[in-house]
Amino acid sequence: MAGKAEATPASDRELVLTRLIDAPRRSVYRAWTEPELLKQWFAPRPFTTPVAQLDVRPGGASLVVMRDTEGNEYPNRGVFLEVVENERIVFTDAYVKAWEPSERPFMTLIATFEDEGGKTRYTARALHWTAEARKAHEEMGFHEGWGQCADQLAEVARKI
Amino acid sequence: MAGKAEATPASDRELVLTRLIDAPRRSVYRAWTEPELLKQWFAPRPFTTPVAQLDVRPGGASLVVMRDTEGNEYPNRGVFLEVVENERIVFTDAYVKAWEPSERPFMTLIATFEDEGGKTRYTARALHWTAEARKAHEEMGFHEGWGQCADQLAEVARKI
Repeated sequence: MAGKAEATPASDRELVLTRLIDAPRRSVYRAWTEPELLKQWFAPRPFTTPVAQLDVRPGGASLVVMRDTEGNEYPNRGVFLEVVENERIVFTDAYVKAWEPSERPFMTLIATFEDEGGKTRYTARALHWTAEARKAHEEMGFHEGWGQCADQLAEVARKI
Repeated sequence: MAGKAEATPASDRELVLTRLIDAPRRSVYRAWTEPELLKQWFAPRPFTTPVAQLDVRPGGASLVVMRDTEGNEYPNRGVFLEVVENERIVFTDAYVKAWEPSERPFMTLIATFEDEGGKTRYTARALHWTAEARKAHEEMGFHEGWGQCADQLAEVARKI
């Protein structure tokens, strides 16, 4: 598959997932930032991602809608805090747009893309405001869900 | 004094304060962003501001310590989200540095500086994650405290 999934969180409020992806950083970054590519991997199959609106710049808003097999939709809104092309994306659900606070600030996601032996080390760190939120996120299936999506991301990145 | 204090909040989670300051935008912005100037107005007197560390750029951290007349100190940590020189500063206490979540995300502050008849329209909007937080902030004396500080800010801006 796409390399090891282990990584060490820096605190009890953090969850981390990492993959070694056999594709250049540029491809992994594109899969993260281009709506038509993100739709192909963002939801764990058989869920789908019918909507992806991404304004990828600091302060830019995003809306990603996931759909389950019964047609229920799950909208995710957030704002990008930091964007370094091909290297790093920081995103939070604490705002629905710049700078309107969301109903519930749950997490900040830091995605990084690094060269490693001709492949790309992809790491996703989810930072939560409380240890309880981290625990809830873990119990919601962070590792399984994000793990499956990381494998789907690798698939997309390899073929572009 | 320094012009009207009324302004309309855009939601029930927002508090707003505005002043017309008889100084150029550049001076008001400097008073907000230069530590030695900020120390002169940030705490309502007789409180003081012995420490101001400001890394004024998106993702930059700040630490401002207020001290009361008995010597008790109140540290305020946060991160700048958006900085447009002489125009606009967005700051939040939801992070203690980029991008470490704080213990309690309480508010996002948007400070704007606009030309108005040769003076500067200064507006500070405090956006909270909940209506309860807004109410608590109001009861803590937002309008009196920030109002007094805005008058002190005007004093500093006029003399530089």
